[in-house]
Amino acid sequence: MARRITYELYYWAEIQGRGEFVRLALEDAGADYVDVAREPGGMKKLMKRMRDGGASSPGTPFAPPFLVAGKLSIAQTAAILHYLGPRLNLAPSNEAGQYAVLQHQLTLADLVVEAHDTHHPIGSGMYYEDQKPEAKRRSQLFLEERVPKFLGYFEAQIARGGPRQSWLVGRSCSYADLSLFQVLEGLRYAFPHGMAALARKLPRVNALHDRVGERPNIAAYLSSPRRIPFNEQGIFRHYPELDAPEAKRAARAQKKRR
Amino acid sequence: MARRITYELYYWAEIQGRGEFVRLALEDAGADYVDVAREPGGMKKLMKRMRDGGASSPGTPFAPPFLVAGKLSIAQTAAILHYLGPRLNLAPSNEAGQYAVLQHQLTLADLVVEAHDTHHPIGSGMYYEDQKPEAKRRSQLFLEERVPKFLGYFEAQIARGGPRQSWLVGRSCSYADLSLFQVLEGLRYAFPHGMAALARKLPRVNALHDRVGERPNIAAYLSSPRRIPFNEQGIFRHYPELDAPEAKRAARAQKKRR
Repeated sequence: MARRITYELYYWAEIQGRGEFVRLALEDAGADYVDVAREPGGMKKLMKRMRDGGASSPGTPFAPPFLVAGKLSIAQTAAILHYLGPRLNLAPSNEAGQYAVLQHQLTLADLVVEAHDTHHPIGSGMYYEDQKPEAKRRSQLFLEERVPKFLGYFEAQIARGGPRQSWLVGRSCSYADLSLFQVLEGLRYAFPHGMAALARKLPRVNALHDRVGERPNIAAYLSSPRRIPFNEQGIFRHYPELDAPEAKRAARAQKKRR
Repeated sequence: MARRITYELYYWAEIQGRGEFVRLALEDAGADYVDVAREPGGMKKLMKRMRDGGASSPGTPFAPPFLVAGKLSIAQTAAILHYLGPRLNLAPSNEAGQYAVLQHQLTLADLVVEAHDTHHPIGSGMYYEDQKPEAKRRSQLFLEERVPKFLGYFEAQIARGGPRQSWLVGRSCSYADLSLFQVLEGLRYAFPHGMAALARKLPRVNALHDRVGERPNIAAYLSSPRRIPFNEQGIFRHYPELDAPEAKRAARAQKKRR
């Protein structure tokens, strides 16, 4: 184990966004870290790093999040987590396991892009209000085809390990498990009806989600002010008109019958 | 250097797609590899691996490409390249450099997703013909805002290294340089007018593209039957109606004036 280091996470102060995958890893491990942009004067520091890079950094980041660890500066969520994984005991010690975890993280990143694009299918620089009909069509296909495909894949990965398997890779929790938890949290926030309708088919994914939420450091973090609530500036946004209309109707009908 | 190994690349036989980033790295390095699905019986082998994983693999891939290297099986393009980089002499030997290259690869991957979604903004499972008006709007924003932002970023990264810098990171060619070449090739194929209109602002990116294309192993590969031509089943598709209409008009007017 290397000497204990204070990590600097650079990410927007107002949203969970992609930075949240890094925050969860740092929190779960009880790592020493500073969430730079949330400190006084931190936004200025973030913008300066975006412009200048670090003293010894070979480049500048395209976008937050980026992590500064001593002399090292790493951008892109999956790259940050691949670096942190073994250091925070959130990845296996063997190479095959580390690549398996990275591969899952990248598949989750693909899902995250698609989740974002449900509300911004035409352009990320445009207002949601100017692409609402397109957002409705994309959201419906997302819930009917893409979420079942992605989460069904993760369900199968957990099932592969047999009845004793609790995590995506091997016998202990990795950063990909924390990220799967976060994706579930986000999807449930954005699409409560759509996700409720899928729950029956994802028992292992949902159980893994709950196991992550019960980890002491994660539970403490989630109930702390450090956890920024979901909101309509982030990746996962709750626009009721995008949530599964059929699932919503079914839920209403059932409520009436009671 | 480890014992020489025969790599197995698993990817669709009919398109460049994401597999092309791996093909370029293997070709540039002169590595021993088999493009499995393009061999007789190879598609069956690919489908079996998708279903069963490898004997010692902790999971199955979500999607091709995946690479088999001895007992190791790795999916997700950026993860494959991060693994291959130091082994093929296409990444720096130091950790900071390796993460810088990985970070660039992931930023290029983000651009690739957006390039794909220009023709499929609503749903990847739908026909292009059923999302054509949306594809036009998205393509316009892509060419006006996103391509200049991404490629302008890479232009600045090359400029950072000063006049002697020829590559994205450090003093030698990495897999991220090969990938930037491929992204340029794809964008020029898909949007000849849109990209011509941007060329003036990207002298370093275009020079890097040319340097990659002149590398002996890359030049030999590009003129061999192993290089699958671009087509309308891949990521980069040439639909003339999506190419920059203003740039097209300007080019036509100029031709008339001659």
